[in-house]
Amino acid sequence: MTRQRLYLYDTTLRDGQQTQGVQFSAAEKTEIALMLDALGVDHIEGGWPGANPTDSEFFAAAPATRATMTAFGMTKRAGRSAENDEVLAGVLNAGTPAVCLVGKTHPFHVHEALGISLEENLDNIRASVAHLVAEGREALFDAEHFFDGYAENPDYAVLCLKTALEAGATWVILCDTNGGTLPAEVGRVTRAVIVAGIPGARLGIHTHDDTGNAVACALAAIDAGARQIQGTLNGLGERCGNASLTTLIPTLMLKEPYRSTLEIGVTAQGLSQITRISRRLDEILNRPPLRAAPYAGSSAFAHKAGLHASAILKNPATYEHVDPALVGNQRIIPMSNQAGQSNLRARLAEAGIEVCRDDPALARILDLVKLREDQGYAYDGAQASFELLALGELGRMQHFFDVERYRVTVERRKNAIGRRISVSEAVVVVRIGGERMLSVSESVDEQGEDLGPVNALWRALAKDLGPYQANISDMHLVDFRVRITGSGVDATTRVIIESADGQGRRWATVGVSPNIVDASFEALVEAIRWKLIRDGVKPA
Amino acid sequence: MTRQRLYLYDTTLRDGQQTQGVQFSAAEKTEIALMLDALGVDHIEGGWPGANPTDSEFFAAAPATRATMTAFGMTKRAGRSAENDEVLAGVLNAGTPAVCLVGKTHPFHVHEALGISLEENLDNIRASVAHLVAEGREALFDAEHFFDGYAENPDYAVLCLKTALEAGATWVILCDTNGGTLPAEVGRVTRAVIVAGIPGARLGIHTHDDTGNAVACALAAIDAGARQIQGTLNGLGERCGNASLTTLIPTLMLKEPYRSTLEIGVTAQGLSQITRISRRLDEILNRPPLRAAPYAGSSAFAHKAGLHASAILKNPATYEHVDPALVGNQRIIPMSNQAGQSNLRARLAEAGIEVCRDDPALARILDLVKLREDQGYAYDGAQASFELLALGELGRMQHFFDVERYRVTVERRKNAIGRRISVSEAVVVVRIGGERMLSVSESVDEQGEDLGPVNALWRALAKDLGPYQANISDMHLVDFRVRITGSGVDATTRVIIESADGQGRRWATVGVSPNIVDASFEALVEAIRWKLIRDGVKPA
Repeated sequence: MTRQRLYLYDTTLRDGQQTQGVQFSAAEKTEIALMLDALGVDHIEGGWPGANPTDSEFFAAAPATRATMTAFGMTKRAGRSAENDEVLAGVLNAGTPAVCLVGKTHPFHVHEALGISLEENLDNIRASVAHLVAEGREALFDAEHFFDGYAENPDYAVLCLKTALEAGATWVILCDTNGGTLPAEVGRVTRAVIVAGIPGARLGIHTHDDTGNAVACALAAIDAGARQIQGTLNGLGERCGNASLTTLIPTLMLKEPYRSTLEIGVTAQGLSQITRISRRLDEILNRPPLRAAPYAGSSAFAHKAGLHASAILKNPATYEHVDPALVGNQRIIPMSNQAGQSNLRARLAEAGIEVCRDDPALARILDLVKLREDQGYAYDGAQASFELLALGELGRMQHFFDVERYRVTVERRKNAIGRRISVSEAVVVVRIGGERMLSVSESVDEQGEDLGPVNALWRALAKDLGPYQANISDMHLVDFRVRITGSGVDATTRVIIESADGQGRRWATVGVSPNIVDASFEALVEAIRWKLIRDGVKPA
Repeated sequence: MTRQRLYLYDTTLRDGQQTQGVQFSAAEKTEIALMLDALGVDHIEGGWPGANPTDSEFFAAAPATRATMTAFGMTKRAGRSAENDEVLAGVLNAGTPAVCLVGKTHPFHVHEALGISLEENLDNIRASVAHLVAEGREALFDAEHFFDGYAENPDYAVLCLKTALEAGATWVILCDTNGGTLPAEVGRVTRAVIVAGIPGARLGIHTHDDTGNAVACALAAIDAGARQIQGTLNGLGERCGNASLTTLIPTLMLKEPYRSTLEIGVTAQGLSQITRISRRLDEILNRPPLRAAPYAGSSAFAHKAGLHASAILKNPATYEHVDPALVGNQRIIPMSNQAGQSNLRARLAEAGIEVCRDDPALARILDLVKLREDQGYAYDGAQASFELLALGELGRMQHFFDVERYRVTVERRKNAIGRRISVSEAVVVVRIGGERMLSVSESVDEQGEDLGPVNALWRALAKDLGPYQANISDMHLVDFRVRITGSGVDATTRVIIESADGQGRRWATVGVSPNIVDASFEALVEAIRWKLIRDGVKPA
């Protein structure tokens, strides 16, 4: 059976930027655009050039992508030509192959928000789209508030779509801008629009999650014949977010009827990367990842209930709707569970740590993990620390060095020419074997900018570790994540540090303390210890 | 038109307990049960007594509720009578007016998980339900894996339901246990089940969010005629969670067709409490609230896009699908680089800062906000810093004090008795008027625990501010949030500090620097300046 093509239009970088608390730099937009391209979406809506300086900057150096790079804007204002509309000119100046313009299709908005007549609005749509086409761009039309507009005046709403298509738009997209339309109505209206003469093959759907139905509404429109979905990674977006492509892509590829009847631009390889891409986006934005996110969440395949866990071990199909490996995720049987011991043995074996089935250390490790997690530690994202914990309980921990003391100083003052500067300095006293070493380091980058106390501490630690120096010298810090956990008197700081070495390894360690420098110190020391163990170093 | 009754069955305390990282104490279960009762749900599934010690403890002292307190369990094992099944006895011993038993309806599970025949399974269902009824309890039957079972053997699946009903169950609930069924199929199967003879008025639906469709699947079943929804507050639950009642209740009460055709046990008063209840649950569990949650999330009515914000000011109906007040939430127009001048004037007016419409400072303020946001500042969550920025551009900023320099030291060493301790100390040199003051402070709490460099810096700053001391003395830090923005050479630290004073004010300020202590310092100084301005203090 020949599958029909379904197109994915990603607006993470534009609608996703409207998420409260989200601010992309141009460099971050570039990295995300490349991830989206590798994933296999068809359009990447990069932002609104001219309106947002960061977006202009991004488009000025936008990466080359297979996906069609698209600039967002709005239809021209009344009272001037499309050629003379400076906002539209700003959008075109970004030079993208495609441009998507949002325009009104709801009489209430035409009158209230724009203060013009229905006829003038149609002219704005027609002239704007025609101008894009004349400039050699692919033109897309986002029909704002479509479902509310259709409810008030269905003929006018459809006429807006037809006007855009006749002016040369390749796609017209039904936008549920307020997010208040339920799936049944989205399906009904989409079918009616197609019956009224808008071809499904040129119809897109853009939904929001204000009733928790963004994904369902997108699917309802596809069921009704639409063939483009606009969404974002991780459901980013205004208010409650857009339809999550992270959630939709696996469903479209793995579940009927979509798997058999529709084809998207994402390959099986791309699908297997979706968990990693989802988590990388959260890292870039330093947003705590949503554990319960479908497919990609760390809990998506976590089977806590005792019944579920023991059944799963016998046969995963009993409690999993898809194989987590297909989306690059993994099954978890959380540590707090009875069935956890066999899972623990399996995880330790993966780390090269063999433990006999009945070793009482297994139960001790589970208890210690629980205890530490109550204190604020998190081993989900700090596998290396988990391994060190296990080795400790198994009596296999080796003792390489001891930090007798450290002192970190941050000073802010005026320099000799009266300019305010900040200086961080760290002193560490390390004992290795019988020897005692003192090291001091400042923390400045090539521009002379102070990188802070944690960086100073790391440099001092790494400066002179005696017999271990060679092993440490190819090690560097890759990422540093801070979370304040608990609240009030229980508040404490959790620091996760990611390290990498010259042999391609990457590992993450965790430290917890009310004192952020101390928490960082704990994570740093663990990072070094893990590296020494993995390098097979013998303690001095 | 007479509305039909739709019943809400809450399983926050049972299925919700299967959320990774969630652990209810019996006291917490009691508090949540009372919240659920005040909200207006019909059944409260409190847990699995006998199987979970905390649940037995909860049921032993369960609060009196209008809602029907319900114990969860499973159908009897084969080879013994219902009366002699000790797990079932444990469930009954809790003495609840209702009991809900989960049982198999999927031949694969009957054979694989239970290792019994289809006939024996029917007998387990029949005998268990009959036993509950004989014991004077309301009996409910959760048909596990129903949609997968129906796909494999529809007749058997329906027969299981009929068996339960004939044995006296008041409700039989179709459970999408793996969460893999899409809404269209849920609707189709529910309709088929009703056609096969199961009355919709005794049919419930229990969905999970593994494809992001838990809410949509619940609505699909209701559209098809089911009349009970099983869900949880805030979508807690195994893996990706259950259908969120926090999301469903407002939709059922405010949106067509449900508003006109169905009636639930929640009143308008209860609905107006749903945001508060949702957030209180997150507080109890110390989970960060989901900002993007439909209806109850802090971002649910946050309008960041410039177009949206200016339209909203004219008429909220333009971009809101429901009035936030109905669910006890509020509209937010965050300050960010997309806000326009009219929005800016409105925000400043709310802060008591009047600015004329054409004041050129407005454009300068917007530009400065954009510039700062490019540097890593975020004013969404730091309203007080935004106000200071505006006052600066308006030439209305007052100069209270100057921090000439500071030095913060964190030291980790062994104390006199050989115990490892951590000590943070800060020295600040402040110039006020013509005077120069030096202050030093350590940072320890009542237990002698070191609270870190930022806390030390705060204490030193707040220790002696000369003429301003009285204003500072009732000020304290409430929250401290750190985010590393950018990456690699662009990485910098953003700190947001939330402060509170004795007059009930709370305000947030932001600081940015690669050095986390310096970023914190900036936020601290702004917090003090804001306080002094709000207190109407005259600079010395």
